[in-house]
Formats: sequence, C-alpha cells, structure tokens
Amino acid sequence: MQVNGTPLRTIWPVAGARAVDVIDQTALPHAFRVHRLHRLEDAAEAIRCMQVRGAPLIGVTAAYGLALALDRRADDEALLAAAHLLAATRPTAVNLRWALARMQSRLLPLPPAARADAAWLEAATIADDDVDQCRRIGAHGLQLLLAGRRGEARLEIMTHCNAGWLATVDHGTALAPVYAAFDAGIDVHVWVSETRPRNQGLLTAWELRQHGVPHTVIADNAAGLLLARGGIGAVIVGADRIAANGDVANKIGTCLKALAARAASVPFLVAAPRSTIDFACANGAAIPIEERAGDELRLLHGCDAAGVPGELRQLPATAAVANPAFDVTPASLVDRIISERGCCAADSLRALYPEQADD
Amino acid sequence: MQVNGTPLRTIWPVAGARAVDVIDQTALPHAFRVHRLHRLEDAAEAIRCMQVRGAPLIGVTAAYGLALALDRRADDEALLAAAHLLAATRPTAVNLRWALARMQSRLLPLPPAARADAAWLEAATIADDDVDQCRRIGAHGLQLLLAGRRGEARLEIMTHCNAGWLATVDHGTALAPVYAAFDAGIDVHVWVSETRPRNQGLLTAWELRQHGVPHTVIADNAAGLLLARGGIGAVIVGADRIAANGDVANKIGTCLKALAARAASVPFLVAAPRSTIDFACANGAAIPIEERAGDELRLLHGCDAAGVPGELRQLPATAAVANPAFDVTPASLVDRIISERGCCAADSLRALYPEQADD
Repeated sequence: MQVNGTPLRTIWPVAGARAVDVIDQTALPHAFRVHRLHRLEDAAEAIRCMQVRGAPLIGVTAAYGLALALDRRADDEALLAAAHLLAATRPTAVNLRWALARMQSRLLPLPPAARADAAWLEAATIADDDVDQCRRIGAHGLQLLLAGRRGEARLEIMTHCNAGWLATVDHGTALAPVYAAFDAGIDVHVWVSETRPRNQGLLTAWELRQHGVPHTVIADNAAGLLLARGGIGAVIVGADRIAANGDVANKIGTCLKALAARAASVPFLVAAPRSTIDFACANGAAIPIEERAGDELRLLHGCDAAGVPGELRQLPATAAVANPAFDVTPASLVDRIISERGCCAADSLRALYPEQADD
Repeated sequence: MQVNGTPLRTIWPVAGARAVDVIDQTALPHAFRVHRLHRLEDAAEAIRCMQVRGAPLIGVTAAYGLALALDRRADDEALLAAAHLLAATRPTAVNLRWALARMQSRLLPLPPAARADAAWLEAATIADDDVDQCRRIGAHGLQLLLAGRRGEARLEIMTHCNAGWLATVDHGTALAPVYAAFDAGIDVHVWVSETRPRNQGLLTAWELRQHGVPHTVIADNAAGLLLARGGIGAVIVGADRIAANGDVANKIGTCLKALAARAASVPFLVAAPRSTIDFACANGAAIPIEERAGDELRLLHGCDAAGVPGELRQLPATAAVANPAFDVTPASLVDRIISERGCCAADSLRALYPEQADD
C-alpha cells in the first residue's frame, strides 16, 4: 500500500543494519511514525503494547524478533528462550505461535553459527508469504462479493476492528477484497466501527482514506440498526485464531456483529490466511482470551452541553472494569471463511486444507 | 435517591420561584452541578443538549417547560407554540409527546388566567406519578428476578445506557429492580456498558456507586462474550418508545445485547412506565430514530504505547460519520416487559392495559 504516495509495508528490515522498522500503530491516525526495533526485547515490547497489532503482523514481527535475538546469541538455549519470550507477549492470535514454530523448525537443525542469517531470510520469507496470501485472499474475497452483488449496485461492506494492511504486512485480510474491488473500479463503501476500547476502527478509517476508499465511521453500538435497515451486502472481519471446527476468535465485539448479520440475513465472512487456523484447537472454548488492562477503558470522552466534544469523562481509578480483548463467534454464525486457498464453509476448513490429518 | 447523603430527585421546582432545577447530566460523572431553568427555551435546550435525558425525565422536563412558558403567556396560541417547540427537541422518546398531550388536555379547557398555576400543579403530578410508577416497576422487577434466581446465588444483571434514577425523576426503570434488590439486602452486581458515543454508562456507574451497588464497567463490545460465558441472570434495559406490538426503541446498541442474550438463553427484560408505550404506533418500523451530530463520535480516546490513556485520537473533521441514537429490538427478542402494572410478554401489552381499545 501507500502512505502519502510512498509504497510501504507495515514492517521491513533496515537496509545495511541488523534492525527492523515498523509503523508505530499507537501513534496513528494522529501521527505517522516509524519505530525501529534493534533487539529481541524491542520486538516483544512492540507486540505487547500494540505498536504492531493484527494477527498476521504479530506473527511476522515475532519472526524478525527471533532474528534480532539470534544476532546476539544463537545456541539452542538462546533460541528457545527468545521464542518463549515472544510467545508470551499476547495469547490469542495463533499466528504468533505459528511463526515461532516455523522459525524454530527451520533454525534448530542448523549449526548455531548459521542460524542468524537463516533467521533473517526465513523472517523475510514469512513476510513475503503473508503479502502473497493476503493478495490471494483479496482476489477470492472479491469473487465472493461480486457473486452476491445485485446487478451493478454499490458494494456496501461492514467491518470490525482493523483487518486491513496495517494488520498484516500488506493488503490486509478482511480489507483485501475491498481494495481489490476499489482497484478494479468497482463502487465500494465501508462501514467502520470505532472498535472500543482501543479504537482500531480509526486505523481502518486512516488506511481507507490513504487509499481513497469511501467509508463511514460508526459507534460499535450502531451495527445492529444499520444491518437491520438493509443495504449492507456483507460483513467481513479478520481473525486472531480459527479453531478446527470453524469457531473464530476475533476482536471483542465481533460476535455481536455476527449475530446482527445473521438476524438481518447478511453474509458474515471471515478472511484469514493459513497461519490463523489452529487445527490443534478443537473449538472456540479452547482458545485463550486475552484480558487487557482496565485503564484502556477508564478514560472516556464526553461531550459538553452543546453536544460537541468537551471535557474528558474519567472513571475513578478504583472503578471495577473488565476488558476482554477478543470474543468467539461460533462457526454456525460464519457463512464463509476466505483464505489464500479460496472460500469454504466454516465447518469445512479441511476441504481447503486436505493435507491436515483428521483429529 | 441520594447524592453524597442528600435525598434528591433529578428535577424539582425551586421553592418560592417560577423556576425549575435539574441535575446537569452533561457534567456527570466529572462534576455534580445543578442547572436552573427559567424559561421555556431553557427547558427545550436542556432536553436538546441532554442536560436532562432518559425518556421519563424528558417527559417531566417538557411538562415543567410548558409551565414556564405559561407563566409568561397562557393563551391557546402560546400554549400550542410552546408544546410544538418542546415536542421538536427530540423525536424518539414518546414520553415527551405523552407528557405534552396530558398537559394540553388538562390546560386547554381552562381559561388562560388559570392555566399557569394549573400547569405547575400538573407537572408536579406527572413527576410524582413517575416516581410512584418507577417504585412499582422496581417491586415487580425484583419479583421477576427472584423467580429466576438459582437459590441464593448473586443476582448478576447486565444493563445498557442509563435507565437508572438519573433517567427518571427517581428510582429509575431498568435499575429500579436492582435498587429494590440491594435495599432488600440481596447480593446484586451490575455489568455496565459504557454506551458509546455519549458514554451514559458512566452515569449508571456513578449512580450505582452513590448507592453502594457493586458494578463493573465494560466496553459495549464485551457484552456478547460475557453473556456467552454464563453467570449473568438477566439483561434489563429501559425504553424510549414501545410500539403496540412490543417492539422496543432504546439506546443504540440495545438490539445487539438482545441478540446476545437470546443466543445465551439469558432473559432480556425491558422496564418502562405506561408513558413509554405508544399504542398508536403499530410496530418498531414506525418509530422515528434520531440521528445525532457526528461530532459525538469524532473525538475518541486513544492509548499510548504503554497501554495507558494518552493522546486523543481524532477523526478528521471531514470524516464521514453516522450516529443514530436508538435502535429497535423486535418484540420476539424481549422476554418480558415490566411496567408499573406488572410483567407481561412483549406481544401482550394489552393484557396489562386492557383499557386500550384494540386497533
């Protein structure tokens, strides 16, 4: 994608240096900043504090984090400790574990002296694979959207959180079909939920604006009414982990949109690459749900008497707050899963991945 | 209810003056302020800008607004013009129109010279009736909650927006059964959604804290996960208008909670007095839905890299925003409606109000 006309990915190795640059997503959309990762700990912290976020991007960042670690020490103990540190940063997105497992299986057979260079190569390959897979998701998803479109009607899409190119290395997952449609000259418009408490919907609005895609921001609460009113052709979201039975863990609030889409007979689609599917996880009940700091919720914006933004409303620091970051949408509410291999029913993931042994 | 130990209603006539005091709810929970209404226009503006909000309280404020108008001019033309001005402040809550109709039918038969004093009396009666009805809703609702409780288990209640005493003259609608339970020594805990974009959930947290009722604040998005996890005994909300068939217009996001409650087999209850029921409105499709200013959404709070409240994230002033303030929950998702008369199935409102002629 492009930022102010410059082609860009969300993460890239720094030419001539053993370092990695990422777009600092905690500064967006307020400011565009690039943040440099020099050490394993920098990568772990960038994931933990959500300077990088989005399941596919977290996986790639972890792969580069391992490369940064091996530059300093590459014996088995160091490799396993680095992987352990990175795996502990966030629990729900399985891409993190998937990328670490792929790196380890590639690197552990090598002599320590050869591991660092191999790690940089493998991380770059994982990043390139992610770009390629997201591009394919865009093509498959666009076919699905066009098949459901009535005549030449505008494609009205609703999404949740940010599953655009900022959540991946490039192209995005849920937004890849949107970009594919827009680039093909198809009239498309996106309903963007702000996605409390972290407001990742503003990242979605920012990247759609950069690309020129028409969109409208709504409160998360408005999704039910808008779907019930009609006119929205599909809800597309990404995923942080898809269980073998098709249950989908994704950003908190996703299952409410799935329920509202089903009630309104609007297709609910999940777009994710292979690295998001956890065939070892039987169903959604087995997916760990991250609980984040209550401070994400405690400071809220209020409006002054004129109905315009005014004072901040703040909950007392002692206020009890619960802040789960993800929820689970049952496979029964997911109409189609879109991966780099194509589309399938949520309960038929093995139709796309027949090489997966049955449990 | 009480504020810092002082018994208080949300609205009261000022002793010895032709004026009305209200709690300024745009300042809460940040600051407790009393705002004085001297003229019709003050009352209209207080409703419009949500210094007073909540369907029952809007109705009472409109009644007092009419009294303020008649103090200055009490001929038919002035009375009708004042009612017209007040009716135009907000479209969805039918209590506003109900209170104005009740005032007009009481006042129009009187000679103009007698109208002002009669208006003050009638407004006070409407306020007292509201208090009495909400108290009855609390008693009926508590019976319903206790009937559904397993043994001596803690009552775990989820609500949306603010339908507590701040939304009425006293006691509240959805929270009246909660206060009744707490005052009876029953262990009760409330899950409070922040209720973007206006964050009325913070009003709920504030009034529950004033009364000592245990509660936990959540993002609106978290309701689906929490209901699916189990342990919540009922969702109780208020209403801005209930159609004759039992469809319920209430704060945007309500229908998402109703869908999630049904999916989790948790009873979804609506608490509202007679003045919220619009027997002239056949179903939810006929209820006008207010669209509020986009600026309510444009300024959002972000978190800094440490995951603690930091910079404000702001959408560009040109960002397209949709901000509907209410949605409609179909009667089929409402398990019981609780009014001052008792409880009934949503599609059987006339069982509680047999004096309503059939359409």
